[in-house]
Amino acid sequence: MLSKAQISLITSLQHKKFRTQHSLFVVEGIKSVLEFIQSSYKIGKIFATAEAAAKLGKIPQNIKLEDVSVAEFAKISSLKNPQGALALVEIPQNTHFDKQELQGKHSLILDDVQDPGNLGTIIRTAEWFGIENIICSIGTVDAYNPKVVQATMGSLSRIKLHYIDLEEFIAQNSLPVFGALLNGESIYDTDFGNHGFIMMGNEGNGIRESLIPKVTKAITIPRIGHAESLNVAVATTIFCSELTRQYLERKNGE
Amino acid sequence: MLSKAQISLITSLQHKKFRTQHSLFVVEGIKSVLEFIQSSYKIGKIFATAEAAAKLGKIPQNIKLEDVSVAEFAKISSLKNPQGALALVEIPQNTHFDKQELQGKHSLILDDVQDPGNLGTIIRTAEWFGIENIICSIGTVDAYNPKVVQATMGSLSRIKLHYIDLEEFIAQNSLPVFGALLNGESIYDTDFGNHGFIMMGNEGNGIRESLIPKVTKAITIPRIGHAESLNVAVATTIFCSELTRQYLERKNGE
Repeated sequence: MLSKAQISLITSLQHKKFRTQHSLFVVEGIKSVLEFIQSSYKIGKIFATAEAAAKLGKIPQNIKLEDVSVAEFAKISSLKNPQGALALVEIPQNTHFDKQELQGKHSLILDDVQDPGNLGTIIRTAEWFGIENIICSIGTVDAYNPKVVQATMGSLSRIKLHYIDLEEFIAQNSLPVFGALLNGESIYDTDFGNHGFIMMGNEGNGIRESLIPKVTKAITIPRIGHAESLNVAVATTIFCSELTRQYLERKNGE
Repeated sequence: MLSKAQISLITSLQHKKFRTQHSLFVVEGIKSVLEFIQSSYKIGKIFATAEAAAKLGKIPQNIKLEDVSVAEFAKISSLKNPQGALALVEIPQNTHFDKQELQGKHSLILDDVQDPGNLGTIIRTAEWFGIENIICSIGTVDAYNPKVVQATMGSLSRIKLHYIDLEEFIAQNSLPVFGALLNGESIYDTDFGNHGFIMMGNEGNGIRESLIPKVTKAITIPRIGHAESLNVAVATTIFCSELTRQYLERKNGE
């Protein structure tokens, strides 16, 4: 039986203010909950209907499972078709961000991406292509927003996100920064090398002016047709794909 | 002054049934309306507030422009932030589809893509990369759905869409068909040649069983991480980008 306080806590986590206050976010759906169980995230509690609990199977002893009725579950779900499983997950505090772990690989930098669907798609796609770290400006939409969590389809559980002051981060950085900009070198002619950052800007404004001098190389996606712009998740996809193509080419050539 | 009948007609076009009945669809926003004016689409009428009409500038004489107040415009707009310009556009009847025009280029085939946002993103991205034709199965979401029109950001005005019986189309086809499937050849190792089709399947089920024997080559996007799948608009983006890379490489090598 869910208490009023529990319902109120869970529904409050739709809002960033309360997520920050409680340092918790919500993961919904059987597959997503299972993926978070297997991840390094700490799960506070799982709420599940009898049917969903059977699908979740045996869960680690240290995770509390609370049975809820289908009717009760409807009160805490934010999905159109609730699957009966919801986890409260702790927001990781990546205060000790070891920049050494960015050596020898490519990471993404997102400068104020605003749309939750875009960020979710970027996380899912980047994880497919083996990107391990995404550096987000403080102004980037919160990745623990339920719309983002849903759009990542579980990939959020396997990628490291760092919300930091980009100006400060970039000032201390020594790796190459490939910025998605107009009038740059064609992405297909660019050698992305062994490591560095792909920097993507905000949906409307692109990369902020003050960061542009820190871009080592301006990169452009060639346009054959007449569309004025590409969606930022689509542009990020193209960068991730080209990085992967070059990586596999190098690997196969060894 | 808008009549009740006009308001009722325009709002009814949110639904496919009425779009088909009237053979009309709605385009909203100043930029999008301007792009449709410049396209081969036939515009029935434009409704605009005084402010928006000024932004539209001089429009061709054969297009009727009806002034509406800001309050009236709110009744016909389906946008959160109405821009004051809305066009009723005729749905083209591509009954005489000349398959000869598919020679010497790559086109997309979509088998029952369902999500309006996905189709909109596919149209916008394909048009960026110079794709001219998209062949849609009858079951593909209607491209004249307002959510699709909005997501294409005007690119719909510059691409040819054909809703046809895919089984019949494919039976008569002699060009190569590159199908997005699991366990195929890596997209990065595939030579897409000078022409053919990229076939993408439905969000949940992929390409229907009965079409798979017609796929000349099964193509897979290599996965480095652990995500279970890619969004169909993201996967289509990767195909369009790789096609473009190969096209530019051939062109530069000539």
